[in-house]
Amino acid sequence: MNGLEDEQMSPQNFLYGCVVEAGKEVVFNPEDDEFDHQLDLRMACVDPSTKDQLNVVEVEGHNSEGQKVKAMLVSLKPSTLPSVCLGGFTISPPAVFRLKAGSGPVHLSGQHLVMMEPDQSFDEEE
Amino acid sequence: MNGLEDEQMSPQNFLYGCVVEAGKEVVFNPEDDEFDHQLDLRMACVDPSTKDQLNVVEVEGHNSEGQKVKAMLVSLKPSTLPSVCLGGFTISPPAVFRLKAGSGPVHLSGQHLVMMEPDQSFDEEE
Amino acid sequence: MNGLEDEQMSPQNFLYGCVVEAGKEVVFNPEDDEFDHQLDLRMACVDPSTKDQLNVVEVEGHNSEGQKVKAMLVSLKPSTLPSVCLGGFTISPPAVFRLKAGSGPVHLSGQHLVMMEPDQSFDEEE
Amino acid sequence: MNGLEDEQMSPQNFLYGCVVEAGKEVVFNPEDDEFDHQLDLRMACVDPSTKDQLNVVEVEGHNSEGQKVKAMLVSLKPSTLPSVCLGGFTISPPAVFRLKAGSGPVHLSGQHLVMMEPDQSFDEEE
Amino acid sequence: MNGLEDEQMSPQNFLYGCVVEAGKEVVFNPEDDEFDHQLDLRMACVDPSTKDQLNVVEVEGHNSEGQKVKAMLVSLKPSTLPSVCLGGFTISPPAVFRLKAGSGPVHLSGQHLVMMEPDQSFDEEE
Repeated sequence: MNGLEDEQMSPQNFLYGCVVEAGKEVVFNPEDDEFDHQLDLRMACVDPSTKDQLNVVEVEGHNSEGQKVKAMLVSLKPSTLPSVCLGGFTISPPAVFRLKAGSGPVHLSGQHLVMMEPDQSFDEEE
Repeated sequence: MNGLEDEQMSPQNFLYGCVVEAGKEVVFNPEDDEFDHQLDLRMACVDPSTKDQLNVVEVEGHNSEGQKVKAMLVSLKPSTLPSVCLGGFTISPPAVFRLKAGSGPVHLSGQHLVMMEPDQSFDEEE
Repeated sequence: MNGLEDEQMSPQNFLYGCVVEAGKEVVFNPEDDEFDHQLDLRMACVDPSTKDQLNVVEVEGHNSEGQKVKAMLVSLKPSTLPSVCLGGFTISPPAVFRLKAGSGPVHLSGQHLVMMEPDQSFDEEE
Repeated sequence: MNGLEDEQMSPQNFLYGCVVEAGKEVVFNPEDDEFDHQLDLRMACVDPSTKDQLNVVEVEGHNSEGQKVKAMLVSLKPSTLPSVCLGGFTISPPAVFRLKAGSGPVHLSGQHLVMMEPDQSFDEEE
Repeated sequence: MNGLEDEQMSPQNFLYGCVVEAGKEVVFNPEDDEFDHQLDLRMACVDPSTKDQLNVVEVEGHNSEGQKVKAMLVSLKPSTLPSVCLGGFTISPPAVFRLKAGSGPVHLSGQHLVMMEPDQSFDEEE
């Protein structure tokens, strides 16, 4: 419960950052059962070590039938588009990020939001 | 009802991804009658197999008179703009995505939101 | 009232798309008196028929004094920037879109939101 | 009070547009005392008369200590980036926009929101 | 309490701007204990003095375990991408911005939001 203060009704906001590289998956799957977790992706960018090719990041999550689905999240090329706003793309865990093209690195950043589940705080009277 | 838990008042968030290619329409039209469905488009991007021409994605939906309307959603060219943020463009089903120019592929990603209809949860007393 | 269902408290979301070309104004001015209308602009893009020059779209609306005002909305050039996110720019009708430079076409897309006016649904008891 | 109708609890939305040029400051400082004013900046763009150099727009406002602060808002170059989304950057008056580099013009557009102050509508009973 | 008026329930909005340069960290850590502080980053841009190389800005904050984490926020190159929207990336203090590549300057701007903590205004009855 470290880092979670008493104002539990509004989501707690933490910094999230990861590096997606060839051959290395990044998993977002917080282990806490008592709280709701959500990832609001904000930015994707390359760095000077990123090769000048199209680097495509895929995200794997779940669709409304509970099945695994994949989506191409972003394509960056250092000489064409080194950064792009992801605009608060909300990802529900568990999710996996991986490179589908290029060798990266591509950096993802955003907000890790932690909140009490609605039924815990409101539905006690039922 | 798979994937839908008890906290039905707030929208459930699922991952959505599709690939728009020449000669292939993508339909967004969830079949569930009990829930409200909505698609918040977040990102559009190309991949290394996308030809270096202007790839234009059209979306077909309905206007406020209930008539079919088409709108050009996004134009991407790998060497000029490989990714663009769609900023949470909310699409109400049924909707169709198709290429109007170029041969793609163009990848769309976003959030599939599922929620109870307001009249089901609030208006029972009427 | 076609296309408007019973859940009138939350805005109804419809697809909006228009094409702005030289010598052709596009007017957004829904004729319905009973509902509040609003246009959330999401994307602007060119297509392969757009000439490679700077195409500038102007929007005309009203300022807080009720006077007509004009604002430059977006500048697109196919070889430099074929698409841009408008980020949910909310336009209150009546509004007019027209080209101020270039010959277009420039495509605008977004959400046409329809909602009951607050005073109709809440203020009846006064 | 022209242009302000009876639904005063939700903000009224008006169109805002200005042109920032060398040697000319643009001030946003509505004179009305009875209402809260806010500027949500949406887009910045150049036009064909903008010279092909980096045009940098500065905004001057106030920090949380009540002191004047300046921030670089956006840098546009016609041949590199003719438009950019400002994403709803909320500016509280009084604010000043001016060019810090380049000779412009740079066009800013957005929403001028007018609302009753919370303490006027809610806190009368105190 | 300078600059904070009586409408304390809604966040107060102030202008934030900083310059990130080689060898110079920028700290965001307001000293006020009575209020909640938050930084909504809106834009990043270069100026004419920024060298034409990839300038990468890192942000350091805390993750949900209370540990220091770093995330790459944005990569800008004057001749490729002089400005980018950060889309309201919410940063909770304390946070540090620094250059990880390039010599800058890179300008960050956004909104410094100040609000009463929920437990102060709502939870007094507990």
